[in-house]
Amino acid sequence: MKLYDTPSAPNPRRVRIFLAEKGVSIPTETVDLGMLEHRGDQFRALNPRQQTPVLVLDDGAALSESVAICRFIEELHPEPNLFGASPRERAFTEMWQRRVELGLLATVQAVFRHLHPAMAKLEDQCPAWGEANKPRLMAELAYLDRELAERAYIAGDRFSIADITALCAIDFLRPTRIAVPDDLVNLKRWKAEVSSRPSASA
Amino acid sequence: MKLYDTPSAPNPRRVRIFLAEKGVSIPTETVDLGMLEHRGDQFRALNPRQQTPVLVLDDGAALSESVAICRFIEELHPEPNLFGASPRERAFTEMWQRRVELGLLATVQAVFRHLHPAMAKLEDQCPAWGEANKPRLMAELAYLDRELAERAYIAGDRFSIADITALCAIDFLRPTRIAVPDDLVNLKRWKAEVSSRPSASA
Repeated sequence: MKLYDTPSAPNPRRVRIFLAEKGVSIPTETVDLGMLEHRGDQFRALNPRQQTPVLVLDDGAALSESVAICRFIEELHPEPNLFGASPRERAFTEMWQRRVELGLLATVQAVFRHLHPAMAKLEDQCPAWGEANKPRLMAELAYLDRELAERAYIAGDRFSIADITALCAIDFLRPTRIAVPDDLVNLKRWKAEVSSRPSASA
Repeated sequence: MKLYDTPSAPNPRRVRIFLAEKGVSIPTETVDLGMLEHRGDQFRALNPRQQTPVLVLDDGAALSESVAICRFIEELHPEPNLFGASPRERAFTEMWQRRVELGLLATVQAVFRHLHPAMAKLEDQCPAWGEANKPRLMAELAYLDRELAERAYIAGDRFSIADITALCAIDFLRPTRIAVPDDLVNLKRWKAEVSSRPSASA
């Protein structure tokens, strides 16, 4: 297998952290979005949606979408499980993974893509939408802070795919020049803890 | 179990079609978004994100996010499987489910939420974003049409959760007053086929 990766982007990092948590190593090729490599014929043959990451299987089939790749890796390497161990735990882990992806990560990405000057050549920017997402982003951070007053991790009492998505979203606040407010102490406690895991450097 | 449902919205319909395909019936309570019932204390205790559907389990735990609910139902009623039968099929079904959800469904919803007059009381509308999504929506429809020239269903040669998401998105074009262009013959062939399934009336 081979993983097409982009070091600076949040979605490929989700897969890298997932692999690090599993202790699995896959040969990697970097796709440079700044050089528009994702728009070239070679990469578009792998993913017509021109997004990284892509996992090319041994038979040449190209699997894209970060969570689809993570699920496939979980099938090949079930433990330590990161999607849950029982039907019920898998259901609530999926709920939280989707809440942080569709709520927090999508919001951070909207601010970045539609307002950051470096993205002008990569996106049809809609600055009004970037601005509209700033208060939504702050509300998502406050919501997670309240939830993390109740438990250690996003989806429950142990680390899961939901924490990976949330960490990649929050670390991607840096290029948007937004910081986690100091009074969100539960979120900061959680962030310090998940950031101290060896996988966080992936 | 009990399902909190909204008849007119695309996400709850995904769960209703999923249940119909499984032949499973769950007692349902309607949440009227027009009456702002989703913002009341009772519903917010079930889902602080104020979205339907929600599946309340027998022990009172509230599971939200349509795909999390569908996955839980698949765990309880594995056949006919709608997420795939093997690790590989599950991976590519998930890829396509996400492509149609994040590409097509999210785009249709953006046009509806940010441009439809009836949504003004429910959303902080950003009309520029609604307009920006119109050409994206047409591109998503054309993309699916090209893909459906290659195979019978969205994710492969049989019906899956990806078809359910795509059908709910395309039927939700009606309130946006956008029609599938007549020259997208593969998409129209697919739509006629999936619409003829008994589950489509759910």
